Amino acid sequence: MNRETLQFTFLGTGDAAGVPCYGCHCAACEIARQHPGFQRHPSCLLLEKGKDRLLIDAGLADLRLRFHPGELDAILLTHYHMDHVAGLFPMRWGPAQALPVYGPDDKRGCDDLYKHPGCLDFQPPLEPFIPVRIGSWIIEPLPLKHSRPTLGYLVTQGDYHLAYLTDTVGLPPHTRERLQEVAIKDLILDCTHPPQESAPRNHNDWNLVSQIAADLNPQTTWLTHLSHEMDCWLLARELPANIQIARDRQQIKRQIVEAIPV
Amino acid sequence: MNRETLQFTFLGTGDAAGVPCYGCHCAACEIARQHPGFQRHPSCLLLEKGKDRLLIDAGLADLRLRFHPGELDAILLTHYHMDHVAGLFPMRWGPAQALPVYGPDDKRGCDDLYKHPGCLDFQPPLEPFIPVRIGSWIIEPLPLKHSRPTLGYLVTQGDYHLAYLTDTVGLPPHTRERLQEVAIKDLILDCTHPPQESAPRNHNDWNLVSQIAADLNPQTTWLTHLSHEMDCWLLARELPANIQIARDRQQIKRQIVEAIPV
Repeated sequence: MNRETLQFTFLGTGDAAGVPCYGCHCAACEIARQHPGFQRHPSCLLLEKGKDRLLIDAGLADLRLRFHPGELDAILLTHYHMDHVAGLFPMRWGPAQALPVYGPDDKRGCDDLYKHPGCLDFQPPLEPFIPVRIGSWIIEPLPLKHSRPTLGYLVTQGDYHLAYLTDTVGLPPHTRERLQEVAIKDLILDCTHPPQESAPRNHNDWNLVSQIAADLNPQTTWLTHLSHEMDCWLLARELPANIQIARDRQQIKRQIVEAIPV
Repeated sequence: MNRETLQFTFLGTGDAAGVPCYGCHCAACEIARQHPGFQRHPSCLLLEKGKDRLLIDAGLADLRLRFHPGELDAILLTHYHMDHVAGLFPMRWGPAQALPVYGPDDKRGCDDLYKHPGCLDFQPPLEPFIPVRIGSWIIEPLPLKHSRPTLGYLVTQGDYHLAYLTDTVGLPPHTRERLQEVAIKDLILDCTHPPQESAPRNHNDWNLVSQIAADLNPQTTWLTHLSHEMDCWLLARELPANIQIARDRQQIKRQIVEAIPV
C-alpha cells in the first residue's frame, strides 16, 4: 500500500451572474465588494495529485494566465454554457501543445469553439457510466438534469471517491443509484438557490441539496455554484457539520491509499 | 463658446489571444508576465465627458465589477466576436435597470445573448453613415472589413472627432471617403499584425495601418488590438511621433470647444 496526498481547489464557486453581481446591493453583494475573499467567480475545480492535474470546467476568464502548457492533463467540461467555457476562448489561440478537452455529447458546443479549436483537442463525447482513465485519474461521467446536455463526474484515485455534480436540478435516477454504490468522501454539489416554494427548473435549491446529500451520504458535501441570493440566505443560517460552503481559492487536502501495481 | 474636457481610456488593447498568450515565451509575453502593465486584455474603450460615459466593446470579463448601473449611457459593440462581447454574459444577469446596447446588423449575435438579454437592452441595428445621438455623444457608424458584420465609430463632441476602427483589414472605400471629410483628432486603429508579406485576412498589419493613417491624416493615431507578435516587432522599432502604441489603462484628456445652444 502507498499513502499519497490528493488536493482539490475551488478556483470558482459562483453561478452565471457571479457575486457581487452587476447592479445588486443585497448584503452578500455588498460584503463581496468590500472583501474580495467573498467574491464568487464561475464554478471551476482543480484536482491535483503530485504532478497529475485535472481541471473541471473552464469558465474563468484568466485560465490562459493561470496555467502553462503541460500543467494540465486535461480539461473536463460539465457542459457548454458560457460560464463553464468562457476561459477557453482566449486560451485556444496560444502557441501550445494540444490540450485534451472532454465533455458531454453536445453537437453545438459554444459559439465557434469547435470551428476554431486552436490548441484545444476536443475528444469524442464521453459516454455516461463508462469510466475513462486520464493519467492516474479514473473518471466516470454521470448524466445530470439541466437545460443542456450535462455530465457530472465521479473521480476515483485509489480508495478515494469525489463526485462533482453541477449544473443540475435533482439527479436522474440512474445517476443517483450509481452514486449510492460508492463510498463518496467529497460531494461537490450545485446549490444555486435558497429553498424555493415551487420546484426550481435548472439548478438545485437548498431543499434538493439536502435530499441529495441524504441519498448519497458522503463524508462531506460542498456547496458550489452559489448565487448571491443563496449567499444572502446563508448569512443567517448554520449548516450541519458535514455540509460546507465552498469559497473561491479554498484548498482541501486528502490522504489516499493506493494499491501498488504488482 | 464653452470649453470642456473629454477623456478616453483604453480599458483593453489586446487581440483575442491576449498578451501574454497561453503557452508563449516570446519576449513580449515574458515581459508582460513580469510586468502586468504590459499585459493586454480585450480591446475596449471608455469615453467620458463629465457624467456622460460610453463604452465601446465589452470583451472584458469583469465589466460587471467595473461599472454600476447608471454609470454608462450605453455600450456600442463593433461586432459579436467573443473577445468583444464576453463581459456581457455575466453582466446581463444583474438586477439592474436596462442598459442600451448598440451594434451592427448581425442576426446571430453571440451564443444566447439575444435569447436571454437580461438587463441588456439590444437596440435596433445601427445604420451605416446615419449618425445617432446618445446622451451628448454623436455617433456615426462606419462599415469595416472583417469576418463578421462590423462597425467602426466616428465619435463627435463639439469640435472634436475621434474614430474607433477595429476590427478591420483595410477600410471599405465609402468609410475611407467619409473619414477624409473630417478633421480627426484621435484615430484608434486595429493594428493586430506586424508587416506581413502577403495581405492579411481579417485584421490590419503595420503596412495597412501606415496607409490608413496617411489617408486619414489624424492628429494622433493610436494602435490597438495588438497581438503578441506585434508587441515583439515594436520592441525593436521607433514609430513616427504622431503614432502611439496604446496600453491597457492609458487615459487621454482632450480640451474641446462646444457651441452653446442658443
